[in-house]
Amino acid sequence: MQYPQPISKLIEGFTKLPGIGPKTAARLAFYILDMNEDDVMDFAKALMNAKRELTYCSVCHHITDTDPCRICQDKDRDPSVICVVQDSKDVIAMEKMKEFGGKYHVLHGAISPVDGVGPEDIYVPDLIKRLQDETIQELIIATNPNIEGEATAMYISRLVKPTGMKVSRIAHGLPVGGDLEYADEVTLSKAIEGRRQL
Amino acid sequence: MQYPQPISKLIEGFTKLPGIGPKTAARLAFYILDMNEDDVMDFAKALMNAKRELTYCSVCHHITDTDPCRICQDKDRDPSVICVVQDSKDVIAMEKMKEFGGKYHVLHGAISPVDGVGPEDIYVPDLIKRLQDETIQELIIATNPNIEGEATAMYISRLVKPTGMKVSRIAHGLPVGGDLEYADEVTLSKAIEGRRQL
Repeated sequence: MQYPQPISKLIEGFTKLPGIGPKTAARLAFYILDMNEDDVMDFAKALMNAKRELTYCSVCHHITDTDPCRICQDKDRDPSVICVVQDSKDVIAMEKMKEFGGKYHVLHGAISPVDGVGPEDIYVPDLIKRLQDETIQELIIATNPNIEGEATAMYISRLVKPTGMKVSRIAHGLPVGGDLEYADEVTLSKAIEGRRQL
Repeated sequence: MQYPQPISKLIEGFTKLPGIGPKTAARLAFYILDMNEDDVMDFAKALMNAKRELTYCSVCHHITDTDPCRICQDKDRDPSVICVVQDSKDVIAMEKMKEFGGKYHVLHGAISPVDGVGPEDIYVPDLIKRLQDETIQELIIATNPNIEGEATAMYISRLVKPTGMKVSRIAHGLPVGGDLEYADEVTLSKAIEGRRQL
């Protein structure tokens, strides 16, 4: 005998999630069986609703339940500054900081010739179009500090700079709370390169 | 701005599961958004069905979608041997072994005076009643090898032994593939105590 069919279905569902192997999936499934029925129903509904109700903002491509998204609709935010990020999760990280008052553009990826991802596979053409339409004065490129992110930043800045727009890249350096001793050479070299007068 | 409401609901759902903190929950929720819609719906349905369709077997109290459970119904299994375990997961562990051909009795807990769990709070009275009704000749007590499990095993054996029934406890010793060097004293002492002639 194996698991009764409803359990094995549930275990199978959990196994599809990242970082969850068959043992953890079985543990979670048995936990679900011991949970309050209302909580389980709420969770199941949340799963369905997340797929059904969420879409991408037609302006900035951030994940949203209204179109345009709340950030694009917000009249208190400065429409002249756009921060370009790779992913919706990056928007949420930026928003947690509570210091950026501009708008966003989510690329949904980065240029990576090795993986066959070119500028037209992510929302770069959309960004260029958006820059022509709106009264945008500054572009902050906040793609990830790795090869793909840097390539994307470089590509966008080369396209946009000739138009005279202000284009900047977020700083690289030591993370706050980090330790110089454990910093890698590239980060340290970026930190020296980007030093600021006190 | 925080997460759009459907995402935060989903994150909240994941956070209720054991071993999943807010960061992992957010990662899983975003993964769900990128998943195939059918897979997500199947997963949500599996959650609901697991709660709705599963019940406990009225004979052995193992989790099941039919009553009595498949094991209790199985005519090829020996009804004269009953293995007593603490949990439904233990039945599944035993069944994976594919060597035990008897039936089970799931206690759903162990006697633990510290936590205020007495024999009548778990399915001990039910087991005693079952022993009177059926033609059972042997009882194998496979509760966990810890204080609560041992106390439960001792309690049951004292109740059942006077009736003349064969009562045994699974062996304690070194796990196969284990290392003598790393074994704790209690396990090692049990291993010596339970040594068998070659």
